[in-house]
Amino acid sequence: MKNRQFLLKSRPTGKISRSNFDFVTTPTPDLKDGEVLVQNRYISLDPTHRIWMSDIEQYMPPIGIGEVIRSLGIGEVVESRSEVLHKGDIVTGLLGWQDYSVHHAKTLDKLPKDDSLPVTAYLSVLGLTGLTAYFGLLDITHPKAGETLVVSGAAGAVGSIVGQIGKIKGLRVVGIAGSADKCRHLVEDLGFDAAVNYRSPEFAAELKRACPKGVDVYFDNVGGEVSDAVWANMNLFGRVSLCGLISSYNGTPAAAGPRNFSLVLMKRLNVRGFILFDFKNQFPKAVTELYQWVKSGKIKYSEDIVPGLATAPDTVNKLFDGSNTGKLIISLP
Amino acid sequence: MKNRQFLLKSRPTGKISRSNFDFVTTPTPDLKDGEVLVQNRYISLDPTHRIWMSDIEQYMPPIGIGEVIRSLGIGEVVESRSEVLHKGDIVTGLLGWQDYSVHHAKTLDKLPKDDSLPVTAYLSVLGLTGLTAYFGLLDITHPKAGETLVVSGAAGAVGSIVGQIGKIKGLRVVGIAGSADKCRHLVEDLGFDAAVNYRSPEFAAELKRACPKGVDVYFDNVGGEVSDAVWANMNLFGRVSLCGLISSYNGTPAAAGPRNFSLVLMKRLNVRGFILFDFKNQFPKAVTELYQWVKSGKIKYSEDIVPGLATAPDTVNKLFDGSNTGKLIISLP
Repeated sequence: MKNRQFLLKSRPTGKISRSNFDFVTTPTPDLKDGEVLVQNRYISLDPTHRIWMSDIEQYMPPIGIGEVIRSLGIGEVVESRSEVLHKGDIVTGLLGWQDYSVHHAKTLDKLPKDDSLPVTAYLSVLGLTGLTAYFGLLDITHPKAGETLVVSGAAGAVGSIVGQIGKIKGLRVVGIAGSADKCRHLVEDLGFDAAVNYRSPEFAAELKRACPKGVDVYFDNVGGEVSDAVWANMNLFGRVSLCGLISSYNGTPAAAGPRNFSLVLMKRLNVRGFILFDFKNQFPKAVTELYQWVKSGKIKYSEDIVPGLATAPDTVNKLFDGSNTGKLIISLP
Repeated sequence: MKNRQFLLKSRPTGKISRSNFDFVTTPTPDLKDGEVLVQNRYISLDPTHRIWMSDIEQYMPPIGIGEVIRSLGIGEVVESRSEVLHKGDIVTGLLGWQDYSVHHAKTLDKLPKDDSLPVTAYLSVLGLTGLTAYFGLLDITHPKAGETLVVSGAAGAVGSIVGQIGKIKGLRVVGIAGSADKCRHLVEDLGFDAAVNYRSPEFAAELKRACPKGVDVYFDNVGGEVSDAVWANMNLFGRVSLCGLISSYNGTPAAAGPRNFSLVLMKRLNVRGFILFDFKNQFPKAVTELYQWVKSGKIKYSEDIVPGLATAPDTVNKLFDGSNTGKLIISLP
């Protein structure tokens, strides 16, 4: 089978560019016992791509030069030498930026047959982004009803779910996003209590007004100056869940800390980073709960599905330039 | 009674200087019901003075211009209109940089009559600094035997106790201090496993060698570049107890965060600030335990007692220039 693949040619120094990749066509390898050939249907694009393509210290090995770009995806088993996965099974795993991939069956998860939700939900609200929101809010910050939660990157795939879980748990939820349209969407469609546009010249003052009782919990996807403004409003014993530092991924390799870091001391803050896979053994419980919230209408989610593997190097930048709303996914024929 | 007092005249912009104070003599006020007049015997000098004298956001109100410099102290009741405190009682509380002070009895704690330890122990190992070490290590980081603990400001009054508690709890303890003598003292006298001089040109490499299994717990008194070097060695799920940021107190008002802040995410660090008074209701338990450790020789402590109230504005700078070892205290006649 002819397989188109994006290989990492050079590490991006700012924005990801097409010149960082080789786009090659290679034959798929023969299967060994226990392996399956998967035809990729959907590729998940996530901010962590920018981390994996760099060689800063990170939570998995960086993608090596010459290696296929790593990514989650959903695909269909088209050949099998496995006893647990069969032709026609729909699976999810680290499929990569390519048409086909070969995996040992035990490195893939078979998806349930469920026509009530599109299968892409397993890359978004029931997958990477929904689970990140779930554990990063509930297990890292232990929010209590009545507290104020601020979410940065709130219109993104993770942030939008964080805010809605916050509402389910009885919090006052304030979102930060990069346009008036996104802010309106957060409040009118997703039930956030308020939303603030970080591009506004009055951002800091507007944020302060949106949090009259200060900030108890900050779910941070972005870092940088947006975070400095949130930190300035943290209450005593506030908690910061550090999920991402998007604002710095395309800049200096190691993100400098908050300018007002001394507030950790003065306000007795608890700042914690996490990676979704730390919670792997609790995934089933969380998927069940998220599924119920989606089916009952308590959580809405959106997906931004762009057709065509070849678009990946350009499409991925939508995550960083603010042009994307909802889970970013590439569909393959 | 004639009372010499240091009043805050201006906020220091770098080092604390004598010109930041008015040194005045005023009569002590008459006592109201419930109040006592205390003659100060010992004044505790602590890094937090530099915070209190500034107007950055902090955990208590800053000292106001024209107000007496706030400090803990030990004194003797010389006049009483209280039914709970009597002439001759030895008390501790926020006595300030002055000869005498008037307090409502309920704002003071009476010290036990115990000749087996000098009374100054209640300003050091059984007081502010010992308790800060106790709660900041045990309650903030939950260290486990076999883990590696790094302490910055390790020869200071807090750091030296932190390291010794770490040894009692079975940790590998590495201290950071500012001279070869201090480092030798930590290892030879206090039982630290290793000590590293942050003024060494090879500091980062020496620190790494002293922590062959990385750093699980970092008790930070100083912040700044020393901390950047420690953070670079943090293990997955490491904990940082933020006790102080001495390196920045005399510099920019709000300390910038660690240069490698993104490690919070990559290593899933837990960074927590604390202030001793958050643990006030657990003080008795901790004092009892510290007392036993001191009496059994498991904890050694030292005090740097400088005579004379008038020296305070110069003496306090010993906390910031590295010339001090042990708890810094001023004694009055």
